[in-house]
Order: sequence, then structure tokens, then C-alpha cells
Amino acid sequence: MTPDVVALLRAELGDRVDTSPAALESARADKSGHASAGSPLAVVHAASVDDVRAVLRIATATRTPVVPRGAGTGLAGGANTGRGEISLSLRGMDRLVEVRPDDLLAVVEPGILNAELNALLEPHGVWWAPDPASRAISTVGGNIATGAGGLLCAKYGVVRDAVLGVDLVLADGRLLHLGHRSVKGVTGLDLTSLVIGSEGILGVVVGATLKLRRLVAGERVTLTALFDDVRTAAVASAAVTASGIQPAIMELMDATSLAAVHRLLSMPAPPAGAAQLTIQTDGPVAADEARAIADVLRGAGGQVAVAVDDAEGETLLAVRRALHPAMETLGTTLIEDVSVPRSALPAMFDAIARIERRFGLNIPTVAHAGDGNLHPNFVFDGPDVPAVVWDAAEELFRAALDLGGTLTGEHGVGVLKRRWLADELGDDQWRLQRDIARVFDPLGILNPGKVFAI
Amino acid sequence: MTPDVVALLRAELGDRVDTSPAALESARADKSGHASAGSPLAVVHAASVDDVRAVLRIATATRTPVVPRGAGTGLAGGANTGRGEISLSLRGMDRLVEVRPDDLLAVVEPGILNAELNALLEPHGVWWAPDPASRAISTVGGNIATGAGGLLCAKYGVVRDAVLGVDLVLADGRLLHLGHRSVKGVTGLDLTSLVIGSEGILGVVVGATLKLRRLVAGERVTLTALFDDVRTAAVASAAVTASGIQPAIMELMDATSLAAVHRLLSMPAPPAGAAQLTIQTDGPVAADEARAIADVLRGAGGQVAVAVDDAEGETLLAVRRALHPAMETLGTTLIEDVSVPRSALPAMFDAIARIERRFGLNIPTVAHAGDGNLHPNFVFDGPDVPAVVWDAAEELFRAALDLGGTLTGEHGVGVLKRRWLADELGDDQWRLQRDIARVFDPLGILNPGKVFAI
Ligand SMILES: Cc1cc2nc3c(=O)[nH]c(=O)nc-3n(C[C@H](O)[C@H](O)[C@H](O)COP(=O)(O)OP(=O)(O)OC[C@H]3O[C@@H](n4cnc5c(N)ncnc54)[C@H](O)[C@@H]3O)c2cc1C
Ligand SMILES: Cc1cc2nc3c(=O)[nH]c(=O)nc-3n(C[C@H](O)[C@H](O)[C@H](O)COP(=O)(O)OP(=O)(O)OC[C@H]3O[C@@H](n4cnc5c(N)ncnc54)[C@H](O)[C@@H]3O)c2cc1C
Repeated sequence: MTPDVVALLRAELGDRVDTSPAALESARADKSGHASAGSPLAVVHAASVDDVRAVLRIATATRTPVVPRGAGTGLAGGANTGRGEISLSLRGMDRLVEVRPDDLLAVVEPGILNAELNALLEPHGVWWAPDPASRAISTVGGNIATGAGGLLCAKYGVVRDAVLGVDLVLADGRLLHLGHRSVKGVTGLDLTSLVIGSEGILGVVVGATLKLRRLVAGERVTLTALFDDVRTAAVASAAVTASGIQPAIMELMDATSLAAVHRLLSMPAPPAGAAQLTIQTDGPVAADEARAIADVLRGAGGQVAVAVDDAEGETLLAVRRALHPAMETLGTTLIEDVSVPRSALPAMFDAIARIERRFGLNIPTVAHAGDGNLHPNFVFDGPDVPAVVWDAAEELFRAALDLGGTLTGEHGVGVLKRRWLADELGDDQWRLQRDIARVFDPLGILNPGKVFAI
Repeated sequence: MTPDVVALLRAELGDRVDTSPAALESARADKSGHASAGSPLAVVHAASVDDVRAVLRIATATRTPVVPRGAGTGLAGGANTGRGEISLSLRGMDRLVEVRPDDLLAVVEPGILNAELNALLEPHGVWWAPDPASRAISTVGGNIATGAGGLLCAKYGVVRDAVLGVDLVLADGRLLHLGHRSVKGVTGLDLTSLVIGSEGILGVVVGATLKLRRLVAGERVTLTALFDDVRTAAVASAAVTASGIQPAIMELMDATSLAAVHRLLSMPAPPAGAAQLTIQTDGPVAADEARAIADVLRGAGGQVAVAVDDAEGETLLAVRRALHPAMETLGTTLIEDVSVPRSALPAMFDAIARIERRFGLNIPTVAHAGDGNLHPNFVFDGPDVPAVVWDAAEELFRAALDLGGTLTGEHGVGVLKRRWLADELGDDQWRLQRDIARVFDPLGILNPGKVFAI
């Protein structure tokens, strides 16, 4: 006799237990284009830490898998929930609990959207720096669980650099307070860092103490540089990094992605084959830095355009921001996420060109060039990733690892990359990581099948 | 029959196995003033990764405890080695293996001294930011194992922010490569962060890929401000933080420590009861920032002196740097290391004054005021910490925890703080941490008795 898990949940959580077909259907997928087989048992809309603890106690008692979920914008299938599983949504726990501009910290619930949080922080003169392109639609808890990065992170850091502590509910319902409110602290093992990027397999993040920054004073200067081809653009971006100036943003778009965005935004087509760098400097010496960067770019063969004001700067950046919708106009997309040392960007673009030729594919690619993180987009027809795309992706991962990089810079492993995880970690580390996860979750009920393909 | 561990070591490592009385004696202690009971079996001076692996294979086969050791400058007793244990010194593995200014990374062996590394990096225009006051005498491996902080860390980060990857030898001799050379990466659990600050209980750090910064361009401006008492100085430092300007250095010395240093350096005595802030700004707008900070300090009642040049700036900082020797002139010192949110600095100084009164002690205190990390010094006669000092320290820890802080900001737990660890972590987290350590080291032979009092 299997226990009636939904009835147990209902008895404790009432109408926060949602079994409507629409809710069950949408819990099957995130934004990766991949969906679970089958339909979850229920979606629970947690309203409090106690709700989360209650769900996990029932889950432990009944050995029912639980999949934590923020806004479901992930690109690795991490929040996808399937047959026999509970989707535990944190989205409703969205309060900003405390702001301390003097201590540069804020305490939040996990479901608050990144952009919502920053809108609330701005009047206090502070901000939370991690800025994934999905900031308007993704939760802070999801950002923490994935270890998200963003456009500004070469200068202002990723999530890993911006969290002081985390409240974590374990698989059995116990609540732990990890970290502290002080900026320094080395008491025992750094479990806060371990939770960042753990994709819901160690516990449920039910609260976080975030490390803030002051709003950056001074102006912002935005410029673009057009290059004959993507390799020249990549060499130019490495030259900017090597010059020692740290732009706030440095994004690279290859010819196919640039052309697709221009089409989507009804802009005149760029020259055939041309790739573009979009760069922004900020702070007290932004203008000087922009001038110096423009010189480097011209020296590297770029055709430079500097925005005259913030509005024009936003227009230039809008081109980069339109990338995701532009890709969708081309077909179904599998967005990859390799990351390499910055000097290896040109070599990585060479590898992508080689893979395109070898597999007869077109792989439009953008890169957070300031930190060496590339998003090659595999575009195809129909809902399922064709075998040839996975073969090409595998070759892509190998090329990134050979260059000293990683197969995921910011999106995580989820279900989509789990079969390559051991290639990067090695078998010993893979097993060690899995055994650490088992210490948090001995029954393996938290997001099973994600990260580690068991 | 116990196996002859020393003979086994000698057979593999020859004269790198040191059993001279002087070596055994010095391995018993670090700079905490605390020493192990009894004398180690041997000190092994590892010259290579293979040496380290050989030692650990023998240790595992014979169930012999191994205590990793850098330069032995730790302040928590972490490297202290006692009866029946092997002291494994990494100090001889001190090569800078690779510098990549373009990728802002360096690969090092663990035994290189922090200051030595930075001297080698400087011609390349880069530096490794963590700057413990012990930088001239402590190893990078020790800095990583303790998660060290330093004077500059409010602006430029602690060790945790400056390591991309770590090579780790496990208790059974297996070698793992954690992390990567790219600045971003979220492949599975972040074991690199877990190793940082792990005090030798998870494995032996035999190599590291460090995240560098460009040398800071522009000038440095140093200033001091004298206040009537330490509370006023603490309020002033919080006001500087709240003003939004980020000094590179902001150090606070209370009356007793300031007077002791003045005596040691044969400087005229400061006014009775006076406390001092020493502040340095750097970068392109250093002078503007220094002027603004001076205004804040004067507004808070400070008597401000600005150095006219770098040489005078160094003289002002030398006062802070002479703190350790000055304390030694007062007696035996137990250096504490609590850390609190920055706005809580005045409250923490109030607590220290209360504890001084209550226990009839004098507790000269300095603070890295820029990040809320205080070093209260308990001074006493004779080699052993008197019971009243431990009682007072316990009260100090409680006060820091009550203010949202931690009992160790940068020195670690070692043996000296293990009995309070569960007070901060809670029993559940304490057990979880210990169980995680057991995954790395199932036999418990790596630095046993440190961090977790078992
Ligand atoms: C248009 C677009 C642009 C994007 N740009 C970026 C980018 O620039 N940088 C980047 O890093 N990512 C980017 N992403 C990916 C995604 O937005 C991020 O991974 C984001 O952090 C996910 O947040 P979420 O709230 O949607 O989490 P979800 O998708 O709901 O969950 C993601 C993972 O985290 C776990 N999880 C979520 N919340 C919790 C919690 N409270 N406790 C425990 N586990 C939890 C889930 O189980 C899952 O494994 C983008 C996505 C889209 C669609
Ligand atoms: C005058 C003085 C000033 C100081 N100032 C500061 C300061 O400003 N900030 C600060 O953080 N600390 C400071 N310290 C403390 C100390 O210098 C640091 O903790 C330093 O990081 C220790 O480095 P070490 O090489 O001496 O390590 P050790 O003392 O040899 O070891 C420290 C711990 O790390 C472990 N360990 C060492 N090397 C390895 C390795 N390769 N692999 C695994 N484990 C290892 C040891 O087992 C031990 O637990 C100061 C100490 C002194 C004496």
C-alpha cells in the first residue's frame, strides 16, 4: 500500500497543494526546452519556512522525491518535476525581510525576483550585483541554487561572491542556519559556499543573507565595436582584458547571432560575417577607461561607436539582450554554457568553427567575453534534441575542458549535463561529491536524478 | 605489534624524514602559544606531490594521524603535532609554477610564502590580494587552509575570493583536481570553497590556481585619526563605512594597544585613553576619497593627520604592524578573532569593556574595522592560559554571536576554539560538518582532534 502523499500534504498545507492540470504540466519543465517524463504528484506553493519543513517531513516519511523550484527559468532541467515527485515552489515566499545599507547586507526570502529585489534596494543606495540576463524573471533562491552569473560579473562578481549566509531545510525537515552576518568568518567548513550552485540536491534554500554593494557613482559609457569576423573580435576582447582595464560589461556576439537580432529588431543587416563587442565602463573614471578601450579595439581592427548618452547606451545593450528571443526565431535552441580562461576565447571560437564544419551545424554563439563564458546555441527543428547535436555538444565540452575550462559556467548540470559530469570531475571526485550529497540527504529524495546520474 | 611507521616512511622518503629533536619539538607548536602533548613520530619535509601521496598511503595503511603544516604561523593550534602523529611539512614545495597576467591567474605549490609570491608577481603587473599581517612568514597553502584575511580584505577580498582551484591529496593518497582555470564554473558541488578554511582536515593542499588582480594604479593616501576613546573611534569607523567610500585599509587600535606600540617604537605616548584609526585609500580617486573620509572622521570627533607621501604613510602603518611584538612586551598573549557586522563594532567594544570590568582583565584590542573583525588580546603571565581568561573569552564569543557575528573571522578553529564550535553552528550543523569531513577521511587520520573535538 503506497501512502496517499497528496492527502498527507493537503492535511497539513490545505489549498497550497495544487493538483490542477495546468500547475502539474508547467512543473514538468523549465526554460531548457526539456521536460520530465510524466506528471508530478502535486505542486506545493510554500508560504513559509514551516510549510517547507512540513513538505519535507512528509516526503521523508513517505520516501517521496521533492524538486525545489524558483521561477523555473533554469536552462539545465534542474527544476523539472516528473512522475511521483512533489514540485516545491518557493516563488510565493518573496519578502525582502531586512535591508542594512550600513552593513551592506539584506535578508530575503528565496522567492523574490532578482530585479524586484534590486528595485527595492535602490532607494537605499545599494544593490545585489549578480545580474543574470533572466534577472526580471528568476528568483534569488534560484540564483543561489544555480550559482548564477551575469553580464556584470567580471567586474562585480557572481552569486558565489555575494552571499553571506543561507537558511537551509534538509531532506528530513530540519532547519540549518549557515554562515553569518559578518563579512568574515571561518568557523568550520564553509557550507554556505557548498550550497551555492548545488541545484536543490543538498536542501531547500528558505532564506538568505546577501552581501550588497553601494550603487556605483559616476557615469556609464557604452560602446560597440564591429569586427570582420568572430575570431578577430575574440582576440580584441582578450586584448582588452590584457590591457588591465576592467569593463563592467563586455559581451561578444558572433555573425549569426548578431544578424538574427538585427532581423528581430528590424535594424539594418550587419556586414556579412561581422561580429560585435558591446562594452560598458562605469565608475569615477568611466570615460577615461572607455577611451583607452576604444583605442585597444581600433588597434585590433574594430570599428568603434560610442554612445553619446545613457539612452543610446541602453539601445546598444538592447541588441545583446534580444539574443534569446532572436534565437527562438531560428528554431528550437539548446543553449550551451562552456567557460574557458579569457585568453583561450579565440581558441574556443576556433573549436566551435571546427565543430560547425565537422557536424554540418550552425552554432550561433554569444560570450560573456569579460569572463570567458560562452553560450553556443544549437538550433534545430522540432521539440527533441537530435543525436548529432548531442555529439557536437560533447565535442564542445571536450574542447572547453582541454582549454582548462568547464562544461558549465553558470547554468548548472541539472539533467542536461549529468552524463558529462564525471568527464570533468574525474570518477574519484564525482563519487566524493555524490557521497557528500548523501550526508545531507541520505534517502536521496531531494531532486533525485539531477546533477548525478544515478 | 605496531608497525614501525618511521621505518616505512624512511624506506620511501629517505632523508626527507626528520626525527631530529629540534624538528620534533618545533612541530609541536604554532604561533598560538599552545603546544601539543608529547612529541611527533617524525617531520616529513615533502618535496613533491608524490612525497605527499606516499606519506598518506603509509598513514592510511598504518592508521597514523597526519598533521599538514605550512609555516606554522597559525594562531589556533591547527598545525600542532603530538604523540604518535606525523607532521607533514609542505614548506619545501615552494615553486611558482605558472603566471598568466592575461588570465589573471597563477599556479603555485603550497609552501611558497605569501610575500615571496607577491614579489615574484609584481614584475608581471599583478598581485594576489590576501594579505595577512603574517604575509612575510606564512605560506599560501596555509593561507588557503585557514581561509586567511588581511588588512586589505574589506576592499580586495579574502582568500575565499581569490582561489580558482586546488589540488588535494586525500587521506588515502588519492589526488583530486578541484576547480578550474576559468573564472566561472558551476559543475557540481564547489569543493574548492569547501577546502578553503578547512584547516587540514579534508586533505592536503598540494597545489593551487590563484585568482590575481592587476596592481592598483594611482596613488595611495594614508591618514590617521585620534579619538578620545575607543567607542568614539568605532562609531567613526562605522560612519566611514556608512558614507559609502571603501578604504583599502581601515584599522582601529584601542588605547592599550596604541600605547604599547608607542612604547615599543619609542614614540611619544598618546593621550591617555586615546584610540586611533589608520586608513589608506588607493586607486584613481584616492585623494578625493581620503579628503571625504577625513571630513567624516573630523565630524565624528577625530584629530586627523594625513601623510604627505608614501614614506610617511608607511610610518603611520608601521604603528599598526608593530602590534604583535608590542603585545609580546606585555606578557603571554592569547589573540582572539571575533567578527561582527560592521555597524556592530561599537556594541562589540562595549561588550569588551564590560568583560574587562567583570573579569578584572585588560583586553587590548585592534580591529580590521573595514570588515568588522576584532582581535582582542588576552595578556597574562606564564605559559598557560588561566581559567579566568577562558571564561572571559567564552563571554566574548557569546557577545559576538549575539551581534550576528562569529567566533573566528580569520584564524580558524584549530584546537583553541573547538569547544565553542557547536555553540556557533548548532548541534545539527556541527554533526553535518563532521560527517562531511568523514567522507573525505573515513578513518579520521587527517589532523584529528582539530576543529571537531571528537
Ligand atoms: C532568457 C534567459 C536568460 C538567462 N540568463 C542567465 C544568465 O545570464 N546567467 C545565468 O546564470 N543564468 C541565466 N539563465 C538561467 C536561469 O535564469 C538561472 O539559472 C536562474 O538562476 C534560475 O532561477 P529560477 O528561480 O528560475 O530557478 P529554477 O529554474 O526554478 O531552478 C533552478 C535550479 O535551482 C533549484 N532551486 C530553485 N530554487 C531553489 C531553492 N529555493 N532551494 C533549493 N533549490 C532551488 C532547482 O531545483 C533547480 O535545480 C537564463 C535563463 C533565461 C530563460
Ligand atoms: C604575527 C602574525 C600575524 C598574523 N596575522 C594574520 C592575519 O592578518 N590574518 C590571518 O588570517 N591570519 C593571521 N595570522 C595567522 C596565520 O599566519 C595564518 O593563519 C596563516 O594563514 C597560516 O599559514 P601557515 O603557512 O603558517 O600555516 P600553519 O600554521 O602551518 O597551518 C595552519 C593550518 O592550516 C593547515 N595547513 C597548512 N598548510 C596546509 C596544506 N598545504 N594543506 C592542508 N592543510 C594545511 C594546518 O594543518 C593548520 O590547521 C597571523 C599570525 C602571526 C604570527
